[in-house]
Amino acid sequence: MALLRDDRLFPTDDRARPVAEALYASVKSLPILSPHGHTDPRWFAENEPFPDPAQLFVTPDHYVFRMLHSQGVPLEALGVPRVDGGPTETDGRKIWRLFADHYHLFRATPSRLWLDHAFQDVFGFDVRLGPKTADLYYDHIADCLARDDFRPRALFERFGIEAISTTEGALDELKWHRMIRDSGWKGRVITAYRPDSVVDPEFEGFASNVEAFGSLAGVDATTWAGYLEAHRIRRATFKSFGATSTDHGHPTARTENLGTAEAVALFDKALTGRCSPEEADAFRGQMLTEMARMSLEDGLVMQIHPGAMRNHSGPILAAFGRDKGYDVPTRTDYVRALKPLLDAVGERSDLTVILFTLDETAYARELAPLAGVYPALKLGPAWWFYDSVEGMRRYREMTTETAGFYNTVGFNDDTRAFCSIPARHDVARRVDCGYLATLVADGRLDEDEAFEVASDLAYGLAKKAYRL
Amino acid sequence: MALLRDDRLFPTDDRARPVAEALYASVKSLPILSPHGHTDPRWFAENEPFPDPAQLFVTPDHYVFRMLHSQGVPLEALGVPRVDGGPTETDGRKIWRLFADHYHLFRATPSRLWLDHAFQDVFGFDVRLGPKTADLYYDHIADCLARDDFRPRALFERFGIEAISTTEGALDELKWHRMIRDSGWKGRVITAYRPDSVVDPEFEGFASNVEAFGSLAGVDATTWAGYLEAHRIRRATFKSFGATSTDHGHPTARTENLGTAEAVALFDKALTGRCSPEEADAFRGQMLTEMARMSLEDGLVMQIHPGAMRNHSGPILAAFGRDKGYDVPTRTDYVRALKPLLDAVGERSDLTVILFTLDETAYARELAPLAGVYPALKLGPAWWFYDSVEGMRRYREMTTETAGFYNTVGFNDDTRAFCSIPARHDVARRVDCGYLATLVADGRLDEDEAFEVASDLAYGLAKKAYRL
Amino acid sequence: MALLRDDRLFPTDDRARPVAEALYASVKSLPILSPHGHTDPRWFAENEPFPDPAQLFVTPDHYVFRMLHSQGVPLEALGVPRVDGGPTETDGRKIWRLFADHYHLFRATPSRLWLDHAFQDVFGFDVRLGPKTADLYYDHIADCLARDDFRPRALFERFGIEAISTTEGALDELKWHRMIRDSGWKGRVITAYRPDSVVDPEFEGFASNVEAFGSLAGVDATTWAGYLEAHRIRRATFKSFGATSTDHGHPTARTENLGTAEAVALFDKALTGRCSPEEADAFRGQMLTEMARMSLEDGLVMQIHPGAMRNHSGPILAAFGRDKGYDVPTRTDYVRALKPLLDAVGERSDLTVILFTLDETAYARELAPLAGVYPALKLGPAWWFYDSVEGMRRYREMTTETAGFYNTVGFNDDTRAFCSIPARHDVARRVDCGYLATLVADGRLDEDEAFEVASDLAYGLAKKAYRL
Repeated sequence: MALLRDDRLFPTDDRARPVAEALYASVKSLPILSPHGHTDPRWFAENEPFPDPAQLFVTPDHYVFRMLHSQGVPLEALGVPRVDGGPTETDGRKIWRLFADHYHLFRATPSRLWLDHAFQDVFGFDVRLGPKTADLYYDHIADCLARDDFRPRALFERFGIEAISTTEGALDELKWHRMIRDSGWKGRVITAYRPDSVVDPEFEGFASNVEAFGSLAGVDATTWAGYLEAHRIRRATFKSFGATSTDHGHPTARTENLGTAEAVALFDKALTGRCSPEEADAFRGQMLTEMARMSLEDGLVMQIHPGAMRNHSGPILAAFGRDKGYDVPTRTDYVRALKPLLDAVGERSDLTVILFTLDETAYARELAPLAGVYPALKLGPAWWFYDSVEGMRRYREMTTETAGFYNTVGFNDDTRAFCSIPARHDVARRVDCGYLATLVADGRLDEDEAFEVASDLAYGLAKKAYRL
Repeated sequence: MALLRDDRLFPTDDRARPVAEALYASVKSLPILSPHGHTDPRWFAENEPFPDPAQLFVTPDHYVFRMLHSQGVPLEALGVPRVDGGPTETDGRKIWRLFADHYHLFRATPSRLWLDHAFQDVFGFDVRLGPKTADLYYDHIADCLARDDFRPRALFERFGIEAISTTEGALDELKWHRMIRDSGWKGRVITAYRPDSVVDPEFEGFASNVEAFGSLAGVDATTWAGYLEAHRIRRATFKSFGATSTDHGHPTARTENLGTAEAVALFDKALTGRCSPEEADAFRGQMLTEMARMSLEDGLVMQIHPGAMRNHSGPILAAFGRDKGYDVPTRTDYVRALKPLLDAVGERSDLTVILFTLDETAYARELAPLAGVYPALKLGPAWWFYDSVEGMRRYREMTTETAGFYNTVGFNDDTRAFCSIPARHDVARRVDCGYLATLVADGRLDEDEAFEVASDLAYGLAKKAYRL
Repeated sequence: MALLRDDRLFPTDDRARPVAEALYASVKSLPILSPHGHTDPRWFAENEPFPDPAQLFVTPDHYVFRMLHSQGVPLEALGVPRVDGGPTETDGRKIWRLFADHYHLFRATPSRLWLDHAFQDVFGFDVRLGPKTADLYYDHIADCLARDDFRPRALFERFGIEAISTTEGALDELKWHRMIRDSGWKGRVITAYRPDSVVDPEFEGFASNVEAFGSLAGVDATTWAGYLEAHRIRRATFKSFGATSTDHGHPTARTENLGTAEAVALFDKALTGRCSPEEADAFRGQMLTEMARMSLEDGLVMQIHPGAMRNHSGPILAAFGRDKGYDVPTRTDYVRALKPLLDAVGERSDLTVILFTLDETAYARELAPLAGVYPALKLGPAWWFYDSVEGMRRYREMTTETAGFYNTVGFNDDTRAFCSIPARHDVARRVDCGYLATLVADGRLDEDEAFEVASDLAYGLAKKAYRL
């Protein structure tokens, strides 16, 4: 018996299914390019064994703990640390049993596909996780984790990862990346430049962040010119650790293209903490355009990830801090928001700006029409809550007819959960092959073309768009 | 010949179809739980025969008369009463013939499925309604309605209804519910608390409604404390008539959590008719949070049904009054709107707040992410215009991957049309089984799990969520 | 070998597919009604040969050149003329080769279906366009275009067009339509009244446009009464050239129903160029209601095409002018926007107002509920970026259950690309037959009804709605 069927996620009709199988066979073993994500570079730097099963699969995975919490499980019981240092569960086995007791909640979710994939392919299970198998799972995973071939670098190699990008803040000293580089290990782990803490006037400690930023870069970043120069310097440093991209996660997609005097005035207000929310938003918007201009200079690909309302629950933010599964998507406008940036640099075909969304209604209405005409724009893959079977299908169905395949950039796993990486890429490859197979089956695409596109979606587009 | 095929609404491919058939066979005869709807308790209290066919199927059903009207049929010709008491058609047979002449308009609509189901299963027809069969239908239905086994209680039992909830306003004296209780009949017909007339400052006669409300409750409801107490008392009375839920149908999902002084000031303004539209909206929003707090005290499940712009046509409202098929959905924000309520009580797992929407774009973007993390939140089923085959499919496809099945609450028929109840539940069961079968067929769900989920969707989730 | 399979776009399962084939066989040869589009009446007036292949297929088709441009091809290289008269490519063969080199970009887009259809059915190709076949294509198409049976009127007849509407501005003298009429040719080419230049205060030269408008109509159009009278007169002239409709492409769906004094004041402001953007929007909205009133007088069907943000790129607008593929859809509200017009004339069943959208989220939420109740409203087909296989499917899935089939108006090709007309109608017929077949296959529609509906969707509804 198997946890997952070999033919999963393929179309269920006899015309498309054999085509999907053939397409998938042609791409399933392609190397993994993971150009955007949040794995921890320390894993690969230190190459220490992963801790216990609960700390591998439950405590750090917000997809997992948010679902258990939605059914009344306190975050403390899952070992999620409290801001006040108050007691939380530390017994990995207890946490694991709680997880196993609630495993039915994940039916038909992507988490279930990813977890079962890891359970089966990484750990060799062939019985389903549940209350009766909780200890069997815990013991076996714990045993594996103690083995050398389950250390991060070994798994990296086993997963067939050709290159993976982590994401570091502008203030990060890139210590782990330096350690990886110095170690002589051949795995390609690169960084990406994420400047939120120094471009968002509403970020905790913005002014002191900017000061620290200047120190790191060796310039006075408290003047507008020095501040921009500090970005250039830090970007160059990130580039020297392999970065090919920057990443920007603002509440909206707003961009601005202000005159220098206006930009300077905003920057000064931001530094002295006198920005209104509207001005803070304008400053963030201005910085997107500045970043795009710098991308034209240094060739870093720009990623824009807008639209999440972060930390929706006040009580949870107070008790547990940020990133506890309470980020919720909101309606996002792109058409008006991006015009200033696009008027400035959108016609440059030597620039790549990759757009993501948490508002699917923008795919067909806004994003595909924009990416389908502006040389600088590309569409990022289905993101976050849409990194799912149905989410990817809707993505293809709503973007392909207007933007085609070649204004998209392949798959991003965007994950913190290391073991889910091959699972996520596998789901994407299956879903894309299924989509292509349906196009072949109903006469919208020739079969030889489908094979070419399948390979591009799985590998070629990411390599090209992210300049890997 | 049959009006409806036995295998209707199942997937059309050979991998999923047999699974759907097996799943459906396992749930089709489960008792009906109808935890939200608008049937008339008087039917069950008096148990009088239903009047003529037109008054059973046409005149009270806004789905039906709005469709005929959209093609130019005057509402008067369908017997819809005018506000000014002006003449409207009273001849049931004439109305019925008009309906039959336009029956083709309903092709591929849910109304057609519901009507054919009732025609076939309740009245035994095997020829389609149309101009040539209008009289045949009319005569046979009229004959049936005269029989004892077509009276409301007999149909209730025949339909296999385990429990049904009607909806009564806060000022309703619950006379019919009392009569049902006193009758000794075993049918479980319960009420639900709908306080629109006393929580909406823009409701006709708000101030005098509040006064009457106080009288009913035996307190002075014109003070804030007395007003809240009156709610507690009336809620208790509704509970004594079986209510397990409250229902709130505001134009938006806005909630507030004001300090007492501010709430008192708003309440006083509302009572004296000095609320601006913005203040009226804030007061309604405050009352949602107050109702949620009372639900924590008395255990009533809270339902929020936002987003309809009521009575869109001025001329129709003037001539025919409210509820004439002119309620139109609007874009609805949940993320910002619900934050005050959720910050106040969203973490309470002993509270159940069920969210509905008329804006499908919120399913994947807002509602599933919210219900997939807040312990107090659950997702209501596809509602109103989305109580349909495609509507239910989109609902599952857009909510399951993020919220799972167990943050949803089964099916609501929400109907005024008694004969449509078994039809609507049957459609929901078929569509859900078809969805589950597709998950099984493409390897996203194990078959044993699908059977468990099918039963939960048809029966278990509603029983649990509505505390029935 | 064929470029396109005979069974393309049909459902891939064995239950629905044979039904789709039978339905399609019954409608594929019905005459083409093209009640809304942008073909050039000069073609039919002069009946000159079409120029070279690039000027037929590439340079005038914004779907085509926007896609190439999105991948970095300069518009100049495709022969798109510059505003400043600067040099652009004039060698048709060079443009064609560039097109052929990028033909893979169109995989799975509607453009690919339309182009291949024209290549196969109009020009007889059986090998795919690409770098290796570019010259073969160019030479053969060029040869064909020199033949009499490839002149506009010959193609019109070969395409089976029963009637086609072009679109002319209110200031157009209808010279080509006059020439067609005077020629004695029997092809039915009619016009449609598009008054943007004289109803939009923000249109270039609005005041002088209104003056010219008065001259054309023989009245003083600078008074409100004269201006309205000029519209009546021009509409009558357009009617005399076969027009059965008017067309209105505003940025929003806003309507107004102002008192005369207010309307006069706005009009005077507009004439003197003192309208704020908000006032300009109100004036456009007022004019929609005025146009609707005139439609009640003269019987012209009214089309509303809102929601495009035109000419999104400032640099492209400056260099190449309007209509260069940079029109991008935006979120569009219909519910509040249309209320003034609908309160004024929405209950009139002798009026037909056809609504289009570029915001698909409005289909199920707003447009189907509105068209499903207002006698004056009908839904236009899937438009522009949604004139596609997936776009049409979503349109049917999201509108049919609430509005039915009979509140829709059949297909519009809306094209400037003459050779795409039979292709577009063929795609629509195939997709609609596939949709109907699925309804038959899963028991939502009887087969005899499906044949009737298929014919209505392909022909009957357009004929009736557009009064052709």
